[in-house]
Amino acid sequence: MVGYQFMGKTHSHAYRDLPFFFDTDAKPIMKAISGRDEAAVKAAAEDMGWASYETDWRTLIARDDIDVIDIVTPNHTHAEIAIAAAEAGKHIITEKPLALTLEEARRMYEAVKKANVVHMVSHNYRFAPAVQYAKQLIAAGRLGKIYHVRANYLQDFIMDPDFPLVWRLKKEAAGSGALGDIGAHSIDLIRFLVGDIQEVVGMMETFIKERPLGEMSGGLNAQSDGEQTGEVTVDDAAAFLARFENGALGTFEATRFAAGNRNKNKFEINGEKGSLRWDLENMNNLEVYLADDELGLQGFRTINCTEEQHPYAGAYWPPGHIIGYEHTFIHLIYELMNGITNGTQPKPDFEEGVKNQAVLEAVQQSQTTKQWVKVDHVGGG
Amino acid sequence: MVGYQFMGKTHSHAYRDLPFFFDTDAKPIMKAISGRDEAAVKAAAEDMGWASYETDWRTLIARDDIDVIDIVTPNHTHAEIAIAAAEAGKHIITEKPLALTLEEARRMYEAVKKANVVHMVSHNYRFAPAVQYAKQLIAAGRLGKIYHVRANYLQDFIMDPDFPLVWRLKKEAAGSGALGDIGAHSIDLIRFLVGDIQEVVGMMETFIKERPLGEMSGGLNAQSDGEQTGEVTVDDAAAFLARFENGALGTFEATRFAAGNRNKNKFEINGEKGSLRWDLENMNNLEVYLADDELGLQGFRTINCTEEQHPYAGAYWPPGHIIGYEHTFIHLIYELMNGITNGTQPKPDFEEGVKNQAVLEAVQQSQTTKQWVKVDHVGGG
Amino acid sequence: MVGYQFMGKTHSHAYRDLPFFFDTDAKPIMKAISGRDEAAVKAAAEDMGWASYETDWRTLIARDDIDVIDIVTPNHTHAEIAIAAAEAGKHIITEKPLALTLEEARRMYEAVKKANVVHMVSHNYRFAPAVQYAKQLIAAGRLGKIYHVRANYLQDFIMDPDFPLVWRLKKEAAGSGALGDIGAHSIDLIRFLVGDIQEVVGMMETFIKERPLGEMSGGLNAQSDGEQTGEVTVDDAAAFLARFENGALGTFEATRFAAGNRNKNKFEINGEKGSLRWDLENMNNLEVYLADDELGLQGFRTINCTEEQHPYAGAYWPPGHIIGYEHTFIHLIYELMNGITNGTQPKPDFEEGVKNQAVLEAVQQSQTTKQWVKVDHVGGG
Amino acid sequence: MVGYQFMGKTHSHAYRDLPFFFDTDAKPIMKAISGRDEAAVKAAAEDMGWASYETDWRTLIARDDIDVIDIVTPNHTHAEIAIAAAEAGKHIITEKPLALTLEEARRMYEAVKKANVVHMVSHNYRFAPAVQYAKQLIAAGRLGKIYHVRANYLQDFIMDPDFPLVWRLKKEAAGSGALGDIGAHSIDLIRFLVGDIQEVVGMMETFIKERPLGEMSGGLNAQSDGEQTGEVTVDDAAAFLARFENGALGTFEATRFAAGNRNKNKFEINGEKGSLRWDLENMNNLEVYLADDELGLQGFRTINCTEEQHPYAGAYWPPGHIIGYEHTFIHLIYELMNGITNGTQPKPDFEEGVKNQAVLEAVQQSQTTKQWVKVDHVGGG
Repeated sequence: MVGYQFMGKTHSHAYRDLPFFFDTDAKPIMKAISGRDEAAVKAAAEDMGWASYETDWRTLIARDDIDVIDIVTPNHTHAEIAIAAAEAGKHIITEKPLALTLEEARRMYEAVKKANVVHMVSHNYRFAPAVQYAKQLIAAGRLGKIYHVRANYLQDFIMDPDFPLVWRLKKEAAGSGALGDIGAHSIDLIRFLVGDIQEVVGMMETFIKERPLGEMSGGLNAQSDGEQTGEVTVDDAAAFLARFENGALGTFEATRFAAGNRNKNKFEINGEKGSLRWDLENMNNLEVYLADDELGLQGFRTINCTEEQHPYAGAYWPPGHIIGYEHTFIHLIYELMNGITNGTQPKPDFEEGVKNQAVLEAVQQSQTTKQWVKVDHVGGG
Repeated sequence: MVGYQFMGKTHSHAYRDLPFFFDTDAKPIMKAISGRDEAAVKAAAEDMGWASYETDWRTLIARDDIDVIDIVTPNHTHAEIAIAAAEAGKHIITEKPLALTLEEARRMYEAVKKANVVHMVSHNYRFAPAVQYAKQLIAAGRLGKIYHVRANYLQDFIMDPDFPLVWRLKKEAAGSGALGDIGAHSIDLIRFLVGDIQEVVGMMETFIKERPLGEMSGGLNAQSDGEQTGEVTVDDAAAFLARFENGALGTFEATRFAAGNRNKNKFEINGEKGSLRWDLENMNNLEVYLADDELGLQGFRTINCTEEQHPYAGAYWPPGHIIGYEHTFIHLIYELMNGITNGTQPKPDFEEGVKNQAVLEAVQQSQTTKQWVKVDHVGGG
Repeated sequence: MVGYQFMGKTHSHAYRDLPFFFDTDAKPIMKAISGRDEAAVKAAAEDMGWASYETDWRTLIARDDIDVIDIVTPNHTHAEIAIAAAEAGKHIITEKPLALTLEEARRMYEAVKKANVVHMVSHNYRFAPAVQYAKQLIAAGRLGKIYHVRANYLQDFIMDPDFPLVWRLKKEAAGSGALGDIGAHSIDLIRFLVGDIQEVVGMMETFIKERPLGEMSGGLNAQSDGEQTGEVTVDDAAAFLARFENGALGTFEATRFAAGNRNKNKFEINGEKGSLRWDLENMNNLEVYLADDELGLQGFRTINCTEEQHPYAGAYWPPGHIIGYEHTFIHLIYELMNGITNGTQPKPDFEEGVKNQAVLEAVQQSQTTKQWVKVDHVGGG
Repeated sequence: MVGYQFMGKTHSHAYRDLPFFFDTDAKPIMKAISGRDEAAVKAAAEDMGWASYETDWRTLIARDDIDVIDIVTPNHTHAEIAIAAAEAGKHIITEKPLALTLEEARRMYEAVKKANVVHMVSHNYRFAPAVQYAKQLIAAGRLGKIYHVRANYLQDFIMDPDFPLVWRLKKEAAGSGALGDIGAHSIDLIRFLVGDIQEVVGMMETFIKERPLGEMSGGLNAQSDGEQTGEVTVDDAAAFLARFENGALGTFEATRFAAGNRNKNKFEINGEKGSLRWDLENMNNLEVYLADDELGLQGFRTINCTEEQHPYAGAYWPPGHIIGYEHTFIHLIYELMNGITNGTQPKPDFEEGVKNQAVLEAVQQSQTTKQWVKVDHVGGG
């Protein structure tokens, strides 16, 4: 694994906990982790259960005893590491968004295709049982033709103007702000559930344009360390309208300035025959409306998706005993392991990552042109 | 109408507003109101739209142009007025609880039976569309055999120790406290929905035993007016267990000391084939669980009972446009008017009031004996 | 009053019920109603309590005993009637949207200014106690600078392809579809709470393009009456992004194709210091998040706006006893009466109606141009 | 560990996952598991990560390399195993309820006191961050004097009459039914939060008295395997009223017949200055009402207890990223490990188990006597 911050922890835990709940032929063995700061990476390896560590990811990739490279570093490093890993014949999973730009993303996809390795992008929220069950309902036609999607990913962790200028707030490291960090999750969820987006028009805004310098590597609790400030070069918030290839209309919003919403990743989908609502903060629940319910008894049902009918849920506890955020990563890694064992390519893979990136890029372009942008026209597509 | 406080207002509004929404052969004509304080009753008549007023209810009852007597005075006066009204051949509706004691209640019921007039007790919550719809579902067997009932009526308006000693806090005027005032509503709702109670065991408590003297007649915003205090002689809170004749188990609780619950009159009913949940503070909604829903799709549905399938709702606005507390009284008076027109006896009538009173009395008795009490054994029944 | 369909009923009830709950110097007297179909208008007058009727609105306006004209007819008739009423010196209240076009709206506003009469547009949802309380919180700075608004008005009453081609689905009578009918309500609510919109970009869609002919005047339960079909010439759904003059970002959506949402008029507002959420289907509740709440105790509060601190609520029942949809009209008419008595101009007036119409027109224009449109540039403004 | 069914899995996972999230001086080492069926116990050891297995718990206890005995077997075996383990000087954690009877529980407590070992009862729900935070609020006086408690533990997994006669439905193996299995959890939660219970009166009921024989060891998905039936000798449901030593009133209910409630372990606590509400099915949320909130802004706050102010939550993910059921066991084992390291006795220990058992026994006794029973009078106490 390359990197060891927040996402390093979620992925490490998933490798460690997977075998307890799921049987896979390929069992993850936590061989090695890499990072540039030796003291820190050594401590991380110990804390998270990695057998060894490297201070250069190139060394890690060169090791024969490594089959899978898991990339949890900042966004601007994904492409270089992933392409090198592909060339070394390693299977790859990388954090989202896939890349800084659509062009980079395409190069990464070319590399893994050429290398014929298994590749995934870590859009973990797809793997909540409630979301997988939503997918089954839609695929079975229970909603009929889809008319509407509204997807919001609302956070509030950088609302304090004293929150420092971490790497996620610099364009050169992050690509974009709320859009690429959390909006990319919404896009993945909705593409998974509803299908491809044809065109978009969006707006992006940076509410706080200067912030104190601080730990650039810092996580959500980063502290500023001085009086110097620097420019925020990504969006604090983004919103866009979308028209889907199947005729549905979508509204998307991603923001880090929605007070009181710690991690409100939610969506609503309205179809001809029914509707769905989901919210990560109560992620075990799915609300379902079925238009063919008896008159008088029509209403949204709140389903606690902890029953054996709900994908992955059967591996855990009896109905009504909920699981949490970290389990979405267990399911993601489960699919990765299955892909490696069976020689199949699980989703979401780099191709999905490219399509996601194309939407991100179209939104950014529309912010500049103030016009609708066709997704398949961006990036010289 | 005799009396003109809080309940005077709800009833007056119902008479006034009924013809706008419902067609009845007998139209209410708001002839006269009575009260002892001439200035106050005159003002009340004007404010609430009564054509005349009396300062003695006996005069009111004696008037030939009055067909219906509506009693909204404190509990200890219900019996005398109702019996006199019955003897004068007037139809009667009275506020709940029917009487101070079971013995009084029975005498009242005897009087109306003998006089052959229409009689009702103002248990208005039965008439929320969601509750009526719940009744339909149960009657149609949609819940199967009922196993459990839990009914809470939670308020918090007298938690302040400086809230004065109003009539509702004196046994001689109110009979009991939370038990008879709001617990009686829960008992009525659940008897309506589930059936008769066989035996009970309960506890009652007065948390604040002395209160400042104040406006005895005072309503919810009554002010204390001095330094003198008096004894609270009714319960602040009561709870009881119940076994129903059909085998169901019930837990009931009524309290004026549940901080944050302004008027939380709620119940849950669990049956063999499904469950219901209702809460007055969002009284248009009924939550329904049906055990024969498809596996995976099982969960409580939140139904906004504003559709034409929901009793009374069709008289108002399109679906999703809610009604409020006052409308329950409109439906109550609607049934009263229909009863008078058609010569039928609407429910809840004095017989229901007697049965309700028997439960109240059994709970009070069990508080003394610390034992289970059979409801049909109380009061020399 | 001119017209007697759905909105005729809400307004009539408000005139009738207002004096019971509120004191106003000017008391509404329900003199006369007009409509072209004599039998129908006569019946409506009787049902709703109007003393007389006319079959030509011009006659109504000409009557000396009429001080106020209330226009509840289809949208395309508002301008002609309102201008005539203004010229006759009558005070005017009209249903929303104010007009078919911005140009019409402006002419109407000129007419009432010139005539120096009191004028209002019936954006009743402003007058829910929870919304008024939200306004107070924002005005008091409790949310700080506003960053985000998301407003959805979701309905589902025309999803059935057999629902007939009523006047609301024809551009010449309605101006637009979901946008002008319900989106206009969201725009009014948000303009009231957050301020003016600078520019918008939107999309509109008609999912079902042909419908059976039926009762053109038909309401929500209209029936089709044959095999002939006609073209739907308004939008079934509309969504738009907005930038506000104060820097806030907004997403709006109005649709009649959101299955399971009977009348979900909801908004969320996120500011620097807090957030608000409201939903018409549980309109007595306001959810409030305050960022300066103690750490650990931060979360959205669900406030049942039935206390005396909540505007208008004190006129009704004790806390926890909810009011409904119809009460918003009582408050609207209350403000109208106060305006007439005091010679002040209550909001929302025709000026607000013009501004609302400008947003509607800008959204429609952006649908054509596929670009952002500045609101103050539309209509030759 | 002795036993390897449902609770064996929760405990095993906790030992395994603890070190990833928490630092403890004593690290759990998963040495050995025991069970009578060699094939099954061998498979369980492998699946759950135990280094070895035994087919006799006596052998396990005799092993020198074992420091802690974890008892997850049916209730009737707890006493014998625990006493033997204590005599062998092992630290002990046992599933709840502590024992079949109060007398047994007391002997167990004597044994561990005499042996001077660390002892705990696995009341895991205490360790949900929201519950621990509730405890902090109460301990800090934020609720003031407690007036009311209502605790329900509602399940529905045995409602099907074909669900077989597993050990949990036989008195000789389980002691009691819903009362001891889930009611014991409610009692522990409320004793933890509110204090000791003085007296109780209760009722118990077995709705389905005969069931098909099947896998006696069976878990929640047990199948019946024939046409023979046997008698259910425990309660399907139990409810009781309680008076607390501090004057609070409580209502408790435990049932396996509440359709639609998979695992609804919920409580409400009302105090002088505020109220709390919690529900296991959305266990990360705590609802808090504070009576000293500003007038107009009073309401229940929904707090997602995933912030660093919420006990244990800081060890996991950023705010808004929830944890699940299994994490309550991690926290329980964390406290066990800390107790062993520091030589302190964590709660809930066997003393708490004895007190819990006394309440269970008092409820059972009151079912027989149909009277209130003082908790400290039961069992010859």
